[in-house]
Amino acid sequence: MPSTQTPLAKMRAVLFDRVLQYRSDAVLRSVSEGEVVVDVRLAGICETDLQLCRGYMGFSGILGHEFVGIARTGRFAGQRVVGEINCSCHACALCRRGLERHCSQRTVIGILNHDGAFAESVVVPESNLHLIPESVTDEVAVFVEPVAAACRIPEQIVVDRQNVTVLGDGRLGNLCAQVLRHHGALVTVVGKHEAKLRLLRQIGIKAISLQDLSGERTSDIVVDCTGSSTGLETAVRIVRPCGTIVLKTTIADRQTMHMAPLVIDEITMIGSRCGPFGPALRLLEHGSVSVTPMISGRYKLEDAIEAFERASRKDTLKVLLQVAED
Amino acid sequence: MPSTQTPLAKMRAVLFDRVLQYRSDAVLRSVSEGEVVVDVRLAGICETDLQLCRGYMGFSGILGHEFVGIARTGRFAGQRVVGEINCSCHACALCRRGLERHCSQRTVIGILNHDGAFAESVVVPESNLHLIPESVTDEVAVFVEPVAAACRIPEQIVVDRQNVTVLGDGRLGNLCAQVLRHHGALVTVVGKHEAKLRLLRQIGIKAISLQDLSGERTSDIVVDCTGSSTGLETAVRIVRPCGTIVLKTTIADRQTMHMAPLVIDEITMIGSRCGPFGPALRLLEHGSVSVTPMISGRYKLEDAIEAFERASRKDTLKVLLQVAED
Repeated sequence: MPSTQTPLAKMRAVLFDRVLQYRSDAVLRSVSEGEVVVDVRLAGICETDLQLCRGYMGFSGILGHEFVGIARTGRFAGQRVVGEINCSCHACALCRRGLERHCSQRTVIGILNHDGAFAESVVVPESNLHLIPESVTDEVAVFVEPVAAACRIPEQIVVDRQNVTVLGDGRLGNLCAQVLRHHGALVTVVGKHEAKLRLLRQIGIKAISLQDLSGERTSDIVVDCTGSSTGLETAVRIVRPCGTIVLKTTIADRQTMHMAPLVIDEITMIGSRCGPFGPALRLLEHGSVSVTPMISGRYKLEDAIEAFERASRKDTLKVLLQVAED
Repeated sequence: MPSTQTPLAKMRAVLFDRVLQYRSDAVLRSVSEGEVVVDVRLAGICETDLQLCRGYMGFSGILGHEFVGIARTGRFAGQRVVGEINCSCHACALCRRGLERHCSQRTVIGILNHDGAFAESVVVPESNLHLIPESVTDEVAVFVEPVAAACRIPEQIVVDRQNVTVLGDGRLGNLCAQVLRHHGALVTVVGKHEAKLRLLRQIGIKAISLQDLSGERTSDIVVDCTGSSTGLETAVRIVRPCGTIVLKTTIADRQTMHMAPLVIDEITMIGSRCGPFGPALRLLEHGSVSVTPMISGRYKLEDAIEAFERASRKDTLKVLLQVAED
């Protein structure tokens, strides 16, 4: 693709290159056709960022894929936007059948061959951008990407008044529980952290401690958001025959399990990753999903190392990185 | 349940009780309410029978769940019938929601707490029986149970003109391929046995050797009928993003695998077991599924040990046990 003339700018950014590092001399790459520069205002640290720092995907570069910023050029110039993270070729067989998020040539912002948003600026395909309604604050808008990941589930399976158990009381478990409840499901979250469980109860979601989980196989749907290799075993133990297990956890390690129960009980297991930004934005705009109580800390970009430490603590939910001042 | 008065009869039967054995002094248990005695004519040896003899399910008793016979009493008295193998309570929560095959109290004929059909007679719930149309011979009717297992797949997932790869050229792989082709799928069978692959080609199904399988991820649906723990790994390797893997193989052992690709590529894995007898019978009646070329051998019940040896050979497809003479 031909590059348009963009001056190479030095900028502040958080990189991972064997070690996590804050730099003030990072380089913003030039934009290609169809791409725009977004000047980042606020970004969120995600479990995936923590895993990338442990070697997942062999990533090196600028981290960050949850962000809100101001588009510098293009049809959203000067306006607040969020950006979908999968950058697709729109030409391969998978794109042509509507599976752009699975494009075989894709880059993924802050995850795969594409510098991310823990920086003053990030390059994003214009078609990935979504305008933020005025009523949605930056603190809320920065949650669009993880809320979209939760919205992926009702895109994949029919969710109505089933019994749904969400394993994991962290960021993603919390959002999945809220989104599935919004779709009518009878949701129980199972977790290990009393403060996180209490937060869920405060918004009317049943939340129990893992040690109080009964062995009854009564869950129509189990969503594994544990981020742990033991989550799947628990899921298999509580899902009902012909029920569904949604896998949200990406575990880098190999996992050992008995597959026979999946066959005998005709369980469906479905992997679930990124989701649609449109529905996620609408949920946030209408206040159908509560996100700001999840903010555990807010750090300047310069203090990213400290922010990452905070994000990896068990008692933390969401840590934000303030890139530009209001 | 009250037992009706049925005299205890000694009969010929094939039992597994630590070892496989032919006995002429087996006992037919008395029938309970809703059950009838079926006098067996012809039965088929299935991969599951071979696994039960290796300790799967901890089974002991009379083996056999693929059979055709004559109902001794009840509304089908004197007529040829086949019988569904899951014997349900029709009262538990699973039965009440229409999941009778997953009844928590169920017995399974020849597999779980229920003597099977490698015997002169077998006790079957009357509601499990299906009348065999006159045009369907015993040799064809004895395939209803495995054809039903193949018919389970289009009950679980939408099958139309997708690219389907069936892994395994054995009995179940062959039948799944035929049933899925009947539903419009573009089927390729991948196997290891030239004679079995040739049989598939003779009925117009594309069949290739495992060593010729390309690494391309172009299968919309992969059906694992390998009976081997390596099948799932192959399936993950060739299924396209957002594709479906149907698990037909019950492996007793634990299996080690990477789950992350299932999440990243949003693969659906679905366990698939017993299926509907009605559609299976209709496919056989209309000749839409070819089964008799799969018969590798036919043995008297007395020669069951030899028949089992034959059934476990790599070059064998279906081995039948002739229980009663015409």
